[in-house]
Amino acid sequence: MEFSISKETFTKALQKIQGIVEKRNTMPILSNALIEASNGLLHITATDLEVGMKSSYPVTIAKEGKITVAAKKIYEIIKELSDEEITFSTKENDWIEIHCGKAHFNIVGLSPDEFPYFPKVNDNIFVNLSNNFLSEMIEKTSYAICTDESKFNLNGIFIKAASEEGRNVIRMVATDGHRLSVTNKEFEGAISNELSKGVIFPKKGIYELKKIAEEESGDIMMGFMDNSAVIKKDNTVIVMRLIDGEFPDYTKVIPANNDKKVTVSREALLHSLRRMAILSSEKFKGIKLDVRSGSIEISSSNPELGDAREEQEVLYDGTPLSVRFNARYLIDVLTVLRDDQVELDLRDELSPIIMKPIAKDDFMSVIMPMRL
Amino acid sequence: MEFSISKETFTKALQKIQGIVEKRNTMPILSNALIEASNGLLHITATDLEVGMKSSYPVTIAKEGKITVAAKKIYEIIKELSDEEITFSTKENDWIEIHCGKAHFNIVGLSPDEFPYFPKVNDNIFVNLSNNFLSEMIEKTSYAICTDESKFNLNGIFIKAASEEGRNVIRMVATDGHRLSVTNKEFEGAISNELSKGVIFPKKGIYELKKIAEEESGDIMMGFMDNSAVIKKDNTVIVMRLIDGEFPDYTKVIPANNDKKVTVSREALLHSLRRMAILSSEKFKGIKLDVRSGSIEISSSNPELGDAREEQEVLYDGTPLSVRFNARYLIDVLTVLRDDQVELDLRDELSPIIMKPIAKDDFMSVIMPMRL
Repeated sequence: MEFSISKETFTKALQKIQGIVEKRNTMPILSNALIEASNGLLHITATDLEVGMKSSYPVTIAKEGKITVAAKKIYEIIKELSDEEITFSTKENDWIEIHCGKAHFNIVGLSPDEFPYFPKVNDNIFVNLSNNFLSEMIEKTSYAICTDESKFNLNGIFIKAASEEGRNVIRMVATDGHRLSVTNKEFEGAISNELSKGVIFPKKGIYELKKIAEEESGDIMMGFMDNSAVIKKDNTVIVMRLIDGEFPDYTKVIPANNDKKVTVSREALLHSLRRMAILSSEKFKGIKLDVRSGSIEISSSNPELGDAREEQEVLYDGTPLSVRFNARYLIDVLTVLRDDQVELDLRDELSPIIMKPIAKDDFMSVIMPMRL
Repeated sequence: MEFSISKETFTKALQKIQGIVEKRNTMPILSNALIEASNGLLHITATDLEVGMKSSYPVTIAKEGKITVAAKKIYEIIKELSDEEITFSTKENDWIEIHCGKAHFNIVGLSPDEFPYFPKVNDNIFVNLSNNFLSEMIEKTSYAICTDESKFNLNGIFIKAASEEGRNVIRMVATDGHRLSVTNKEFEGAISNELSKGVIFPKKGIYELKKIAEEESGDIMMGFMDNSAVIKKDNTVIVMRLIDGEFPDYTKVIPANNDKKVTVSREALLHSLRRMAILSSEKFKGIKLDVRSGSIEISSSNPELGDAREEQEVLYDGTPLSVRFNARYLIDVLTVLRDDQVELDLRDELSPIIMKPIAKDDFMSVIMPMRL
């Protein structure tokens, strides 16, 4: 194999796969990237067997072929090269030769025969989604993904589509057992079997999807095959194995009788919570909300540090209520919303809170209270 | 005590002392800041018994007094407050009350009686040095400070002044046993006894000195009393205990017979070393320099990764020479210099190298070679 490529393109291409490459050294080949030159294109592939990514770039090929090389090391090298044309070629025994300006590298490669198979993707399977649409939905749910690896069915985002009142709606849900976030958006396109049943995208795949959604504008194509989701955007394909488990019926944890509805400025509440959280304990971040007619008092205390309280004006004229939460959970929700005003729906001190934007039904978060 | 202060001033004041406060929790009072209001000024002091800092700011005082409070926590709180006037007052049993807008904090303080004494500074002891001058000299030497705490006499920068050929010259020296950096500059002002004998500034104090030198332009005053250096700039005083030890006679390690003089572009050599260092081992970062008439070849190799080489044009017409170095040490020197061309003075493969700017005598670094 021999091809030449600009430093800029090669750096970008290698940077893109760094998040995919396996960090744990269980199978050496998974810390390598597959580099293939064929039909005028350079293909770079990385996989950890759960999430794989393949990107293609036009290059000048002198001789077609393929090789694998340590993904992190080759990226470090290419990044440091001068801004000149790079030639990349293979030699005997899987050695790689790189030339750029006056610099020459001989790098140990590994045979491409060892590299895991990357599936061929059929172009018929896809629906189109706008990249902004996807990145916003991921932002509004991903913070609630469970990080406890033993609860594998919660280690991702549940995605489901349905036809509701004549509109096709796609919904994303994440929960860690303490809080739940649900967001939905109308979309155009057919609802595949997988989306209609609902699928769980793994956390790592979700972050890669968010990255390519935020990179450049343009539609993202989403499809399914062989228990995997396939994502295509421009010159890049991501294949991620879906989580094989049941996502809990989240509709059951959404409380129906939270009749105490408080309207509050999102920014004011967010800043107030951040201040009050400083005096709550590092571990539980407990703060107390005292809702009264026309106001909410946020307070915290800590035997080693002292106590703090702050009042905010709200729209509320029901009976008074006190309830405790982990400040971090409330802050996470207020941080991903963009609305000026949010609604807090409460019932009593043992019931979960619902947080959502005013007069919109595209987002909802449910948060369990803390008990004393 | 009661005073009021703007959020901006209080945040800046508390931010400034964060580097001084003791991180290890050996004496709880050392993680506190002393806050004093007297004569229209707020004084904030922090110390770890080695390096202390006291800054003063005009404030509106309702009642004079003093208290100590956890330096990190109070900074976190003040940073998060809204942009309104802050009132800070003490109550019984060393409690502190803070109000800002609608937020109220009651914070546990500690009695100021426990706080270490901060020395009174006599204004007669100082020489004036420009801040750019100091920060440049520190930048050009501090990277070579020894981090091995058992070699306590090398854990800082040796500073000495002398009258040389009718000019007063101040010199800074740092070494970790593998490399040595020396920089000197002409200055105006008297040479105190301490500077004429030479003193060792501790590493932590050096970093604080560099920070205030870079903060804002303006002269820095430097003086000595009771085995301490005293630094004054605007509203801030730093007192640091000098290292009580002998600095080795660094003039003895500067080789006198390095007759092979190579002139090379600083930028080109720096980038080349960065590239070649990628293939050297993580631990020793060994690279090889092959100097020949008109060129230098930089190369590295690593049994697990491969090998690399690169040539640079140089001015040199002596006999060929090969010598090995830790690439990190050469890179550190080339990074702090600003000159287009540097001179490498070599002798043989077992002798240290001298690196310095062309046709200037204000900086010199000596680096030991690596042996095989």
